[in-house]
Amino acid sequence: MCGLFLSACGNLGSSSGTSTSTTSGKGTQLTGEASSGEYQGVIKNGKYVTSKSRGVNVSQNDNQYNLKSFESGLLDVSKKVFSTNKYVFQEGQYLSTNTVQNWLNRKSKSNPTGLNPVNNGKLGATTRNPMYLQQMEEQDFMKESGKKLTLSGVTVGLGLNSIDYYEKKSYGATYETHISNATIKREGAKIANQVLARMRKKPALKNVPITIALYKQAATDSLIGGTFFAYSVNKAGTTKVSSWKSVNQKNYVYPTTSSSAKTGNSNDASAFDNFKTQIENFFPNLSGVTAQAQYTDKQLSGMNVNITTQFYSQTEIISFTQYLQQAAQKYLPSGAPIDITVKSADGIQSFLSRDSGAKKFTAHVFNSY
Amino acid sequence: MCGLFLSACGNLGSSSGTSTSTTSGKGTQLTGEASSGEYQGVIKNGKYVTSKSRGVNVSQNDNQYNLKSFESGLLDVSKKVFSTNKYVFQEGQYLSTNTVQNWLNRKSKSNPTGLNPVNNGKLGATTRNPMYLQQMEEQDFMKESGKKLTLSGVTVGLGLNSIDYYEKKSYGATYETHISNATIKREGAKIANQVLARMRKKPALKNVPITIALYKQAATDSLIGGTFFAYSVNKAGTTKVSSWKSVNQKNYVYPTTSSSAKTGNSNDASAFDNFKTQIENFFPNLSGVTAQAQYTDKQLSGMNVNITTQFYSQTEIISFTQYLQQAAQKYLPSGAPIDITVKSADGIQSFLSRDSGAKKFTAHVFNSY
Repeated sequence: MCGLFLSACGNLGSSSGTSTSTTSGKGTQLTGEASSGEYQGVIKNGKYVTSKSRGVNVSQNDNQYNLKSFESGLLDVSKKVFSTNKYVFQEGQYLSTNTVQNWLNRKSKSNPTGLNPVNNGKLGATTRNPMYLQQMEEQDFMKESGKKLTLSGVTVGLGLNSIDYYEKKSYGATYETHISNATIKREGAKIANQVLARMRKKPALKNVPITIALYKQAATDSLIGGTFFAYSVNKAGTTKVSSWKSVNQKNYVYPTTSSSAKTGNSNDASAFDNFKTQIENFFPNLSGVTAQAQYTDKQLSGMNVNITTQFYSQTEIISFTQYLQQAAQKYLPSGAPIDITVKSADGIQSFLSRDSGAKKFTAHVFNSY
Repeated sequence: MCGLFLSACGNLGSSSGTSTSTTSGKGTQLTGEASSGEYQGVIKNGKYVTSKSRGVNVSQNDNQYNLKSFESGLLDVSKKVFSTNKYVFQEGQYLSTNTVQNWLNRKSKSNPTGLNPVNNGKLGATTRNPMYLQQMEEQDFMKESGKKLTLSGVTVGLGLNSIDYYEKKSYGATYETHISNATIKREGAKIANQVLARMRKKPALKNVPITIALYKQAATDSLIGGTFFAYSVNKAGTTKVSSWKSVNQKNYVYPTTSSSAKTGNSNDASAFDNFKTQIENFFPNLSGVTAQAQYTDKQLSGMNVNITTQFYSQTEIISFTQYLQQAAQKYLPSGAPIDITVKSADGIQSFLSRDSGAKKFTAHVFNSY
């Protein structure tokens, strides 16, 4: 997820057979040879092949964290099913903007394909029908056969609300319907069956494996996104989901704000607190030191540390970054990949990173001429 | 300037002799052992030693580029004089905020130490006395002797206006006095002599080498900062600058906006144009592809490429970054260090970098949980 160290532009030649590798970039190409667990992407006639429902999810998320974690989390699910060595990634080409927008709306006379329940006319938090499905994304996986790329797998992510925000009148106050984990799971599975059956009706999707993954959206004011909690690999031709595999992934924000707050692991939480105390003591005017921590199967699987500071001088940023390099190695939990970004009002100032296997952090101070 | 790859926290023990290396961080420490041409910085009692005139330059610069390039450029000048192996960096401790603010103002009855000329009462662009000195910065260089750090050198940068912006009445329109290179040089040298003589009056600065460097500020609306054009190394005790060494450094913005626009090197300019065309063709909705290029002795010595895009999805950012890694290697000039940042309205999305000696770009996509 972190470091992309790639090389050499893989040219697949032309799918029409008229052109091979040319500088004008005709035919189908790939973004690059993946050498560290990343997919190559599909380029056609020199252009990146964008999603047919491009941008819909941006408008569906008030919380940017839900957007990013949904998309990169879905890619992680895909990697479990479609190996990055054998498959090439393509943005979803079968669900169009129109289709996705209709599916994400409520079912109604004018929108018979809506996957969210009909409006029952009620406005009570527990009596109304909430919107369960908030966002969805299709990812396509291709295999090279000769000079052609053939669709060989599809992954669909369904983002399900844990809280559905609604208004009782237009521009009125915002109310919340809380949705239990059991309900999210039940409704997610129902929607997954409908999605699978509908996709099978498209000739191109009839005979490819389709993976469907369920994601629980975080609250709008959350400083972390939601997480995937289940996925199902459905063999070519199947129109009903037969079984679900569960994903045990949780996100936490450090520092925890009260003693009762949830933490992924109390050792990690206090390691972060020590780190925070140390660097706040070292460097005056840090206005924020927080972290997103992700746990997979109860083990820390990644951490993003965000440090906000007022900008006083470039030499301070250089010295602070040097110090962070020591302090992070000394105090932050080992084993998991960690990113640290130092930001001011003018944007990112410096950046440190350590891969899961590495001991030391590399650092970069952003400069300007 | 780019990669900071440092290790091990150098502990100098306590300068007061009461404490050695402790976790509470008493005594004097260093930010880290420099292993790639960066200075270590001074930590006292666990705290970073900030400049005595901290923050003055931030308020003196309407153009953030002048601020960053002044400070990191000054550090580059210092490195020519005070080796990063032998000296430790300390933010300026001898010129206070008050002193610097008074020196940066006009000379007047109430401000006898002002280094800018008296107000002659005239308002014409060529008849008035412009403000020559816009910003100044002190950097201290220490040597370890036994368990102590001793001041062993000072560098002072003087930022000189190429355009002095002024108003004829408060909150009125802004007018400009353009200052020729010859005048900048002459007035800069005059101010340098005054600064040197004044610094020698401080007992601590009497017998250390003092380097003074002259910087030409860029226009307020410039997309690049100014550059240093001369520096002078003044031996311990000297109160007058004897000679100046010139620095041949120029900054340019690519793409050049018209055929008559200045360029550092026409091959580099067209290489950048090709790169820009290629990636704009590849990826829809890039709203900006620009670069800052710095030339030292007419050779490209560094480039910062800034790419602005609308955010559609994390997978697009990943694919785009993979593609950039290929395209940058193929099209951008080799030999010089290059940074590439991809930004959206939500901040930095990904980042690529190549050191001067390296062939390939490393890349990092910023993720979120």
